[in-house]
Amino acid sequence: MKLDCYLVPSEVTEATLKGRVVVIIDVLRSCTTIAYALLNGAEKIIPAGTVEAATKLMSSLDRASTLLCGERDGKKVSGFDLGNSPLEYTREAVAAKTLVFASTNGTKLMSRGIKAEEQLVCSFVNVGQVIARLGPEGIEPVILCSGTSGRFSMEDSVCAGMVAHGLIQASANAWELNDGAKAAVALYEKWGNDIYGVVSGSSHGKYLLELGFGLDLEVCSRVDSVPVLCVLREGRITVSR
Amino acid sequence: MKLDCYLVPSEVTEATLKGRVVVIIDVLRSCTTIAYALLNGAEKIIPAGTVEAATKLMSSLDRASTLLCGERDGKKVSGFDLGNSPLEYTREAVAAKTLVFASTNGTKLMSRGIKAEEQLVCSFVNVGQVIARLGPEGIEPVILCSGTSGRFSMEDSVCAGMVAHGLIQASANAWELNDGAKAAVALYEKWGNDIYGVVSGSSHGKYLLELGFGLDLEVCSRVDSVPVLCVLREGRITVSR
Repeated sequence: MKLDCYLVPSEVTEATLKGRVVVIIDVLRSCTTIAYALLNGAEKIIPAGTVEAATKLMSSLDRASTLLCGERDGKKVSGFDLGNSPLEYTREAVAAKTLVFASTNGTKLMSRGIKAEEQLVCSFVNVGQVIARLGPEGIEPVILCSGTSGRFSMEDSVCAGMVAHGLIQASANAWELNDGAKAAVALYEKWGNDIYGVVSGSSHGKYLLELGFGLDLEVCSRVDSVPVLCVLREGRITVSR
Repeated sequence: MKLDCYLVPSEVTEATLKGRVVVIIDVLRSCTTIAYALLNGAEKIIPAGTVEAATKLMSSLDRASTLLCGERDGKKVSGFDLGNSPLEYTREAVAAKTLVFASTNGTKLMSRGIKAEEQLVCSFVNVGQVIARLGPEGIEPVILCSGTSGRFSMEDSVCAGMVAHGLIQASANAWELNDGAKAAVALYEKWGNDIYGVVSGSSHGKYLLELGFGLDLEVCSRVDSVPVLCVLREGRITVSR
């Protein structure tokens, strides 16, 4: 059984992902924020590759039932309804809404329209849901880290390692790990008992701390705090029921 | 003091490397092969970005004193004098020669003509030379892994971790590691006592084994077996004396 993990998006092409079950990871913060939004009743999330694409798409949708969401350089885009802090995505704000969402790293990956079998949106807050979905099915997933502006990020890689480690533990299969998966598991084994330390000590975590998003880092570190499996199909992210 | 490591080439731009001392790592096999060639008396090595560029450059050089070297998919390019096995680069073959060299990953990085302060060509066989060069000088290096066809490779990352670990050990400086450097050091700490296991168990190592290059993997795993500091300056790699 193949267990492939890619630590930066540039490692994969459309051909790598075609027909596979893909786990997209962006701990800080889009995958965490998406889980919160769905937990709090958002109907669906439409990931956009750029701020411009999100704005354009928004103009074709019903303004009353849709929110325009996203960040650049960690900060809410001017004129948007919400930024990329999970704490903004309260029930009052998002219940029954459609969210058009443009983050720098995660939603860019999600908007690529690849021909994957299925795509799961994963972060520490719902990692157990992802493992539970994959484990018993005998799936050979591709775990894909969003990274930070195309660069390796520690928090995504440790989360990828947590998924891979969980799958290995959950089944008696003989797994064949690629180099990225071996590395991710090693990083998880080293630091998995201090997820807040991983998140707050990472390059992007330190940047967000400087911006004043310290509470976000705590929220993004709470393993399995949001029991929602977020599935991306045909350009829409919804809760898998 | 900053200690930056990038695990795949796509993480860096020319701006990232400008004015920095860059350590280029390609364990399997170009950086190992280059060290062997210089150990065995090659005058200089001219890295080329592609087979075509190497062939074109060759046509302008003295055929009697120049060798055309390189591989694609691990195998010697048809019509070339030498491939990318360090064992081919004997004293008889390369002494006093200029080598034009096109490998898939390493020389592609080396041929980019970046405006680095200095570039060092590094693999397990000469890693101690690189640490000795950097350590006492108070240099803040950028360590850059070649990877395999743009993908993360375990052997390069563990070697990067060995360089970073060596620098940290060698000086009392307070180092500030980026996420890639932290990961590389962790991978080195986990597997640094079994370099042959790292090299032969890596994705590219397994591919080379299938091609019959098992002895190359042993050669490429011998830490500090080639006491040569290889420096790339103005498009030429020579021994630093």
